[in-house]
Parts: sequence; C-alpha cells; structure tokens
Amino acid sequence: MNTAPSLRTQVKRGAPKASYDPALLHAIVDAAYICQIAFADAHGVHGIPTACWRRGDDLYIHGSNGSRMLQRLTEQDCCVTITHLDGLVLARSAFSHTMNYRSAMVYGRFEVVGESAKRQALADFMAHLVPGRQALVRPGNDKEFAATTVMRISLAEAVCKVRSGPPTDDEDDMDIATWAGVLPLTQVRGTPVPDPQCTLPVPGHVRDWVTSGRSFPASARRNRGRCR
Amino acid sequence: MNTAPSLRTQVKRGAPKASYDPALLHAIVDAAYICQIAFADAHGVHGIPTACWRRGDDLYIHGSNGSRMLQRLTEQDCCVTITHLDGLVLARSAFSHTMNYRSAMVYGRFEVVGESAKRQALADFMAHLVPGRQALVRPGNDKEFAATTVMRISLAEAVCKVRSGPPTDDEDDMDIATWAGVLPLTQVRGTPVPDPQCTLPVPGHVRDWVTSGRSFPASARRNRGRCR
Repeated sequence: MNTAPSLRTQVKRGAPKASYDPALLHAIVDAAYICQIAFADAHGVHGIPTACWRRGDDLYIHGSNGSRMLQRLTEQDCCVTITHLDGLVLARSAFSHTMNYRSAMVYGRFEVVGESAKRQALADFMAHLVPGRQALVRPGNDKEFAATTVMRISLAEAVCKVRSGPPTDDEDDMDIATWAGVLPLTQVRGTPVPDPQCTLPVPGHVRDWVTSGRSFPASARRNRGRCR
Repeated sequence: MNTAPSLRTQVKRGAPKASYDPALLHAIVDAAYICQIAFADAHGVHGIPTACWRRGDDLYIHGSNGSRMLQRLTEQDCCVTITHLDGLVLARSAFSHTMNYRSAMVYGRFEVVGESAKRQALADFMAHLVPGRQALVRPGNDKEFAATTVMRISLAEAVCKVRSGPPTDDEDDMDIATWAGVLPLTQVRGTPVPDPQCTLPVPGHVRDWVTSGRSFPASARRNRGRCR
C-alpha cells in the first residue's frame, strides 16, 4: 500500500509522512471544497484554485468553456494539490517547530466529461457542496450546460502527506522549560447568512450542512514527523 | 491601482473581482500560514504547499538545502498561490451558486536570502506564527542555520481575486421560493493541546494567539461577482 505509483509521486523529504492509501486520499479530497491546479502555458507556470469534487476514483472540476486553464488541461499533464492545515506545532527549539496538515497531490491528464455524463457530474458537485439542495433550486437549462465544461482526472497517480500529533524535539532539548504542544486550526461552518432579499426560513438541508461537518478517519492522524 | 503589472497577472474570467491593491495583497498574505508553489522540473509541473510569511514587499519561504523545490526555484519563474475560502454561496438557480474567497497569485523568481539576513528572516517567520515565542525557545544553532535555505520573492507582480457578499441570481430567478444566502467557512483557532510530556501552564503568548485571530480589512469584502 505504501509504494509510489510513479517517479513523480515519490516523496523524498519527510518520506515517513507519505501515504498511497486510497482511503486516505479519498478522505482528503472529500474534505475539500477547492483544489489548486498547477499547469503551464506560454506565459509560464500557474497555480489556480478551483472548486473540486470526487466520484469514485476521479476528481472533477468545472468551468466556462472559454477558460484558459481548462483548455490547457486537455493538452498537458498537471498537478492537483489539496491542503488542509490542521495546526501549528510548537516545539522547545525553534527549528523543531512544524505544522500539522493533510495534503494530497494528484498527477495526470484531465479529460473532458461527455454531454451525457455532465449533468450527473454537476449534480454530484451540488451534493458535495450541500447535500439535499439540488432538487430545491432551478436546475441548469440547455444553454447553461452547453456553456460549461466538466473535466475529470484519475486519482491513480497520487500521493498523500500527513503530519499529526505533538512536537518531536531532540532529546537534548526536552529539558528546556518552554510550553510545547499543538495550536489547532479548524475550518468551521458558521451560521448561515440569508440573502437580504430572502425572507424564507433556513431550510433543513442548510441546517444539516451547519451541524454535519466533515469527519476524517483516525487512521490519517497516526503519522508523525517533522517538516523543518 | 487596478492595472495589471504584467500580462500574466491580467484576469480574464471574473475581471471585476480582480485587484492589484498592495494593501489587499498584504492582508491576504498575512492571513496565511501556507502558500502553494507551482513550478516545473524534468518530471512536469508541481504544486507544493509550504509555509510562508511576509516582510515588506517580499514573500518568504524556507526549507532544507537539499529541497528539490528550492533548488528549482532559483532557476525559473514560478507562481505562488494563497487561497482563503470564506463561504459557499447558495443561489436560487444551480448555475448561480459560487464561493466567497480571497486569493492571491504572485509571479516571479525567488532569490536566496543571504547568511546575514537569514536569522532575521526566520525570526520574522516565528513572529508570524506565534508572536512573542522566539525569545522563549532554544534558538537555532550554526549547524541548523547552515542546513536551511530561506528564499524570498517580490510581491510586485501579483494579482488578488476576491468574492464576497450574497448570491447574485438572474432577475428571472428571483421569484423562486428557495432559501438563498451564504454558508460561512472560517479558520478557527482551537484550544491549545499540550505535548503529553509538557506539564507547564499555557503561557501568555499562546493564550494571545488563541484570542487574537487575524483581522481582515472591510475593503476586501466589498466586491461581488459570480464564478460559475
């Protein structure tokens, strides 16, 4: 399970923190609303954030047909990165400070999702954002679907890197009388803010979104290491 | 103030959401602990998350001297991306759904920070993470500093993109009886978790970190637009 699927997914720095476990990869992707896509064009390399979601072993994105990025992504391999920052790790020595995080990098080539699968894919996207909402909104019309491109990339060539847990100071530093531990950072779902022009009560699917949060498997929290 | 400094920082999609205001750029960088760096090597393009901080008009990163990424970054231009996701924007029609966010993309070439400035730069890094901590930890020794590379990139060639506020449905969709509004997402600082081997009380600089949070100028929240 912990063998890199390719040369470019081999982790050299902090190798003990690397994982190729598909369940971990899926959990990291599912906990994300956005990814960042690194690609190149005539002007150089770019890293552009965009919304993402998963179905099976593919990660999906969407955009306008005219998007420069989407056009380039059919022509070349790219790298999709997702990062969740979970905390600052305060050690007894300056250089042992690090961060707790869950990250995934996916390499490969996006392909355009055909017309027949596009509507299901965008329904999956809505279900990822706010489960239960799709049936309550005005669905896309033919013109809107025609103007939109959906693309997917296989999750087969991917690597996760996770750091969790307390600091790991050198033995020589353990007697330093300085507080050490983790300062947690969490993405929290706040109280819904109604559109000023909306007087309807907050519906069940929105209340559910606030209360449900996203769980993350304990297995992802077992690794330890140091970044710096 | 709203003129792109270069061809590659011109925003084509959602141009009204673009800004070249240095104060906004500084605020977005200062609110971040990590950035993602897009660069290329013989294996293709990569997007790698790494810790960052700002001093003046430069963004700083650091790493091991042996880091593949740091070595490549002196040889080529790259793109540094920071993204803060602020909420999901629920509209009355499926295709008017979008997200609220603050993002920045910085283009250019990193340069290595010389030995004389390296120690101050890493002290700045600690002050960015947890103000007041530097004097309380075992500082770096000559060996640790010698093994670490600090790099900086000018913020001169950069573009910010911000979306905030309620959804913007088409006029024809305003009568649809579906709740519309924003589901806020916020990075929250949690209760410090002491190292199991640490029995010291939580010190003032850690308590201050929890309570201070990071402010963000109201000017960054004025823009509206639609992403999809």
